[in-house]
Amino acid sequence: MTDDKNIGIVETKYYTFARSPNEMVLESGKKLGPITIAYETYGRLNKDKSNAILVAHALSGDAHIAGFHKEDEKPGWWDNMIGPGKAFDTTKYFIICPNVIGGCKGSTGPSSPNPETGRPYGLDFPIITISDMVNAQKYLIDHLGIEKLLCVVGGSMGGMQVLQWVASYPDRVISAIPIATAIKHSPQQIAFNEVGRQAIMSDPLWRDGNYYGRSKPERGLAIARMIGHITYMSDQSMEEKFSRKLKNGSYNFSFIPEFEVEGYLHYRGDNFVKRFDANSYLYITKAIDYFDLSPGEKLIPNDKEINIKFLVIAFKSDWLYPSYQSREIVKFLKTRDIDVTYCEINSTYGHDAFLLESKEETHLIKHFLNKIYSSIKNER
Amino acid sequence: MTDDKNIGIVETKYYTFARSPNEMVLESGKKLGPITIAYETYGRLNKDKSNAILVAHALSGDAHIAGFHKEDEKPGWWDNMIGPGKAFDTTKYFIICPNVIGGCKGSTGPSSPNPETGRPYGLDFPIITISDMVNAQKYLIDHLGIEKLLCVVGGSMGGMQVLQWVASYPDRVISAIPIATAIKHSPQQIAFNEVGRQAIMSDPLWRDGNYYGRSKPERGLAIARMIGHITYMSDQSMEEKFSRKLKNGSYNFSFIPEFEVEGYLHYRGDNFVKRFDANSYLYITKAIDYFDLSPGEKLIPNDKEINIKFLVIAFKSDWLYPSYQSREIVKFLKTRDIDVTYCEINSTYGHDAFLLESKEETHLIKHFLNKIYSSIKNER
Repeated sequence: MTDDKNIGIVETKYYTFARSPNEMVLESGKKLGPITIAYETYGRLNKDKSNAILVAHALSGDAHIAGFHKEDEKPGWWDNMIGPGKAFDTTKYFIICPNVIGGCKGSTGPSSPNPETGRPYGLDFPIITISDMVNAQKYLIDHLGIEKLLCVVGGSMGGMQVLQWVASYPDRVISAIPIATAIKHSPQQIAFNEVGRQAIMSDPLWRDGNYYGRSKPERGLAIARMIGHITYMSDQSMEEKFSRKLKNGSYNFSFIPEFEVEGYLHYRGDNFVKRFDANSYLYITKAIDYFDLSPGEKLIPNDKEINIKFLVIAFKSDWLYPSYQSREIVKFLKTRDIDVTYCEINSTYGHDAFLLESKEETHLIKHFLNKIYSSIKNER
Repeated sequence: MTDDKNIGIVETKYYTFARSPNEMVLESGKKLGPITIAYETYGRLNKDKSNAILVAHALSGDAHIAGFHKEDEKPGWWDNMIGPGKAFDTTKYFIICPNVIGGCKGSTGPSSPNPETGRPYGLDFPIITISDMVNAQKYLIDHLGIEKLLCVVGGSMGGMQVLQWVASYPDRVISAIPIATAIKHSPQQIAFNEVGRQAIMSDPLWRDGNYYGRSKPERGLAIARMIGHITYMSDQSMEEKFSRKLKNGSYNFSFIPEFEVEGYLHYRGDNFVKRFDANSYLYITKAIDYFDLSPGEKLIPNDKEINIKFLVIAFKSDWLYPSYQSREIVKFLKTRDIDVTYCEINSTYGHDAFLLESKEETHLIKHFLNKIYSSIKNER
C-alpha cells in the first residue's frame, strides 16, 4: 500500500487553547472555549520556520490528508498531492492540516462536550463562520511558532479559508492557492446547502440536534450527502461513469434503486453517515453560506497594500463552483495590482476535480511553490 | 383578471375507459383499469377534425393549461401561450390537454380508488412509463374521433410524451414540438429524481405509501420540490432574483432560513404539498427516469419512413435539460432526412424558461403551426 512517495504512518495531534470557558469571541458575538484543534503535520519545520504550508480542508474533509493511520486501508484524502517529490514536497516543506472547528474529526464541534453541561453541545454549539475557523487556526500557527505561512492552500470550502486567511491575517501569509472556490457563496450554492440541512432537520431522529447516544438521523444525512455528490460530479462524468446502466440488467418496475447512478449515490450516502456527524454538516454548511468577501475590499481593504502571491485554480466542468467565480477573484486581484496566476484546468470531473486532477495540479503548484520558496530564501 | 385574449371560464372534463378491471396492459406487463383521464379543451374542433393539438404537461403540471376555473385567481399554467391570437390560437385550433395517468389531478393515479379494495391504490398502483401515459392519451384521442393530431407539443416531461407519440403512433401525428427535453433521461437527471424520491420515502408519514386519510409526508415532498426548483432555475436567474439578500437584513446566526433564496424554496415547497400527491411524485419521476428512446431507432425504426414535421426548442441557460440533449434529437432526425427546425432561445431563466419565454416561443410556434395547417388544408 505504501511506496517511496508515501509518507507512511501518521498520527493526528491535538492542541487546546482558549482554555477558560467562552474565551474566544466568534463573529456572531457568542463565545467559545475551550477549543481543541485536531491537526496533522508532514515533513519538518525548518530552522527559521519559513517552510510551513497550511492546507485547509473542504466540507467533509478532515486533518488526515496524507499517509496512513495505523489501521487505515486508504491514505488521507489528498495523498496524491502530499509526500516526497509530490506537489507539496514533504522533503522541502512542513505541511499542516487542521480540522475546522464545528467539525467532527477531533476539533471542537457540536458533538464535543459542552463544558457547562458535560454533555455534547448539540445546537447549543454557537454558529461559526469561515472567519472563526481561520481565527482558530491562527492560534495553532502561533502555538507552532510560525510567523509567516509560506502558503495557504485549499479547495472548495478550503479555498474560502485561504481567502479568509488573506483577509484576516495578510501579514502572516506569503502566498495563497484558492482552488475551485468563490469570493462569496451564491444563491444556488446556498440553496443546495439549505436543502441538505432540511433533509437532516426533517429526520425525526435528529430531535433538534439532541441525538447523541441515541439513533442518529442517518437517512436525513445520507440524503444531504446524495445531493452533495450530484453537485460534485459533472453531467459528463456521470454519463461516462454510469450512463443509464442498470444494476441488474433490466428494469425492476419498482421504487428500489436500480440504476447504477442510484446505487452509487446510496453507497456514498450510507458510507458518509458512518463517518460524519449530522450537526457538523449543519454548522459547516451554514459557515459556507455566510462566506462573503465581496466586494473585494473585504478581501483586501482599499487602504491596504499586500504582497501576497496568488495561484488561482478552477476546473472547466465544475458547475458547483463554476470557473467564473474563480475569475472574479482573479479580476479583483488584478485591479489591485496583485501578482496572480490563473489556471482553468480542462477536466470532466466537475467539482471533484480538485481532488482528482493531481497531475495538472502538481505541475502548477510545484512550480509556484518553488518560485515562492526560492525568492524568500534569496531575500535572506 | 380576464382580457380579450383570455379564454375565460373553463371546466375539466373526464373520460373513463378500460372499464373492466385490469383491461389496459402496461409496459411493465401489469394491467390497469378502469382508467379515467381528466382533460381540458379550448377552441373548437373543426368539421374534418384536422385542427386538434395535444399539449402534454410536465412533472407537476395538469390538464388546466389556460383560462380560469370558477374560483381561480390565477389562470392555467400555459395561459400566456393558449388563447385567441396566442401561439396556440384558440380561434383556429382545438387544444386538448390531458392529465397524465399516475398523476393526482383527476386522472387515475396512486391516490385513486383501487377497484379491488375500494381504497386508494397507494403502492399497489402499477409502475407506469411515458409510453403508458401516451397509450392512455390515445384512448382519449380515439374517443374524441380525431384521426390525426395536427400537433403534439410539450416541454420537459411533456416533450418526452411528444417524442413517445411519434414513436408509438407516428401515423396519428402531423407535427411535433418537443421543448426543453431529451431523447433519454441522463444519469444526472435520474440522480436528482432519486434524491427527491428518497426525501419522500424517508418521511415517516409516508408509511410505504399508505398515508391517505392520515397526515401526509409533507416535509419529504417539500424537500423533493425544493430540489426540483433549484434545477428549474439557472445560477444566473437565482443571482438576479435573490443574490445574497437576507429576509431581515442581517444574519440571524441560527438555522432558521434567512436568505431570500431559502425563503423562496420553502415557499415553493410548502405550496406544492397543498396541491400534489407524494405518491404521484414517485410514480411520475420514475416514469421520467425510464424514458429512453435512444438510440433514435426507438424513436423512428430504421425500416419506417415518417412524414412528421418537427420544431425542437431548447433554452441556453437550461442546465437540467441542456440544449445538447435537444441537439441530439435534431441530429438524429437530420440523419433520417426528417424536416426539423431547431431553435435555442437565449434565455437566463433556466429550465423554467419553457413556461416563461412566451414571446419567442409564440413567434416560433405560431409560424410553425401556420405553415403546417396551411399545407394540410392545401392538400385537401
